[in-house]
Amino acid sequence: MAAFTFNKLVIFGVGLIGGSLARALRERAGLAGEIVGVGRSEKSVARALELGVIDAAVSIDDDRALRSALEGADVVLLAAPVAQTEPLLARIAPFLDARTVVTDAGSTKSDVVAAARSALGARIAQFVPGHPIAGRESSGVDAALPELYVNRNVVLCPLAESPAGSVERVAAMWQATGAAVHRMNEAQHDRVFAAVSHLPHVLSFALVEQILEAPDAALKFSFAAGGFRDFTRIAASSPEMWRDVCVANRAALLAELDAYTAVLARFRAAIDAADGAALEAAFDRSRAARTEWQERGTIDAAKAHGASGTPNAPKSADDFPAK
Amino acid sequence: MAAFTFNKLVIFGVGLIGGSLARALRERAGLAGEIVGVGRSEKSVARALELGVIDAAVSIDDDRALRSALEGADVVLLAAPVAQTEPLLARIAPFLDARTVVTDAGSTKSDVVAAARSALGARIAQFVPGHPIAGRESSGVDAALPELYVNRNVVLCPLAESPAGSVERVAAMWQATGAAVHRMNEAQHDRVFAAVSHLPHVLSFALVEQILEAPDAALKFSFAAGGFRDFTRIAASSPEMWRDVCVANRAALLAELDAYTAVLARFRAAIDAADGAALEAAFDRSRAARTEWQERGTIDAAKAHGASGTPNAPKSADDFPAK
Repeated sequence: MAAFTFNKLVIFGVGLIGGSLARALRERAGLAGEIVGVGRSEKSVARALELGVIDAAVSIDDDRALRSALEGADVVLLAAPVAQTEPLLARIAPFLDARTVVTDAGSTKSDVVAAARSALGARIAQFVPGHPIAGRESSGVDAALPELYVNRNVVLCPLAESPAGSVERVAAMWQATGAAVHRMNEAQHDRVFAAVSHLPHVLSFALVEQILEAPDAALKFSFAAGGFRDFTRIAASSPEMWRDVCVANRAALLAELDAYTAVLARFRAAIDAADGAALEAAFDRSRAARTEWQERGTIDAAKAHGASGTPNAPKSADDFPAK
Repeated sequence: MAAFTFNKLVIFGVGLIGGSLARALRERAGLAGEIVGVGRSEKSVARALELGVIDAAVSIDDDRALRSALEGADVVLLAAPVAQTEPLLARIAPFLDARTVVTDAGSTKSDVVAAARSALGARIAQFVPGHPIAGRESSGVDAALPELYVNRNVVLCPLAESPAGSVERVAAMWQATGAAVHRMNEAQHDRVFAAVSHLPHVLSFALVEQILEAPDAALKFSFAAGGFRDFTRIAASSPEMWRDVCVANRAALLAELDAYTAVLARFRAAIDAADGAALEAAFDRSRAARTEWQERGTIDAAKAHGASGTPNAPKSADDFPAK
């Protein structure tokens, strides 16, 4: 694969994710192309300009500036809450060069693909859905880091219509930031991240909500310690972003939530029956898997309960060859 | 309050908690008394002896050594999984000096008090229930640190029978480690920690269990990232300890689990209805409370939903004056 270069990159939403991409390409990969930031207003991208993260700041409401920003762009990245995908793409479509590849950084993919089909119509082949796995609780361009994507995963969900060259351009861009790029289909993506990301966020928000409802909430918070701190770190995440994720990925998320509720009901029965052996066996399995994951980054598929009689992990999560 | 000194301290279970107390008293507070470690076998405390954390290692099965260990002890600390409280106290009772104060480090208190009443009978006044809030995922004496308790909380749940001097001896011991000592009754303690510690552990174990049950578990684990890492850190905790906690505190834990399930059902309905406004409002409340807690160590009681029309946090969590 050829190394990534660009003459112009346009980023819609220059916060943690978009800002870190800009800084990585410039400061880490040493690339010299122009980077334009587009915000809900020019003011919203002024800070990114002030920090030198982008070369030009454009308001999405300014037709003339937007047309000029998109002219000759190699890549457009959408890095805004996922519910904005359709209106953003509809706004961009009239100004889009035929040679521009559009990608996104949304945490959900089925809804993003549907939004893109609706907004782009016949130009859907220009869109390569993507998801860099690099969230933090801090947000905004001041939190952007050139090293954010180093050794992180980026998932691309190319469409049947996507030309190989477009997919490779997006893959090469992310590889230039230090990320490993993988490929899944959007349903698979949404199921995986419903389980390992979206559900834990909902569970974490719910615990804080529950304690807030107790009459002795202040006392409870005042004795919360390290376990609570780690468990609820993600409850400090952006409410707007997570609202959109929950709504956008609700089918997969509800399936995971129901499966989780079933496990919890089993645990409840074991606690109620004082069945220490059942609890210890389950906790033991969890600890072993969590420890293996921490050490190896995954688990041996054969150790999963669900693995018996079912195929191993799908093979479609192909890695792109590193350049 | 007088500073803590001791001639002899006997610790049953010299792991992270017991070992850190020993190291704190010796290395941090500079106290010179004898520290005896008692284990299920002499071998189980040999490592603590080798590390210099204790001065003598005794097997609990050795009558003669146990009698000699307990003779003249100022303080006895139980630092073993809570289900062992009753058999341990029953084993100790025949050898207990009248002037010895016995305390424990268990994560639950109502069951510990019941076990102590059963095992100690008329000598119950010698027992001061305690709980240092200082867990880590790592366990064993090799993980013990002299600084583990600095700026941590220790909760004591003195019994009606406990003489003030005994309670103050235990409070002064923990203050010498750098901890802040608080007082609650055992029901209050168990309710607070069911909410902020026991329930999150169960929820975290349950998430790993659920993913393990999925046919694509290995794929899911391989894309789990920072949110999953923090949320499940406590799922690497000791299965034996948490089995005991769940069984010992099951009444309070089930009440919290049911309240949590009710919140989750509300969240599920909002997700299913694509009610973004309800989700964002709840996530916003959680983020604000989590952020306030992170900054101040508690929240303003008036901000808790449950606070309207109900009294503020109970006043019985009195701090002991620092010496």
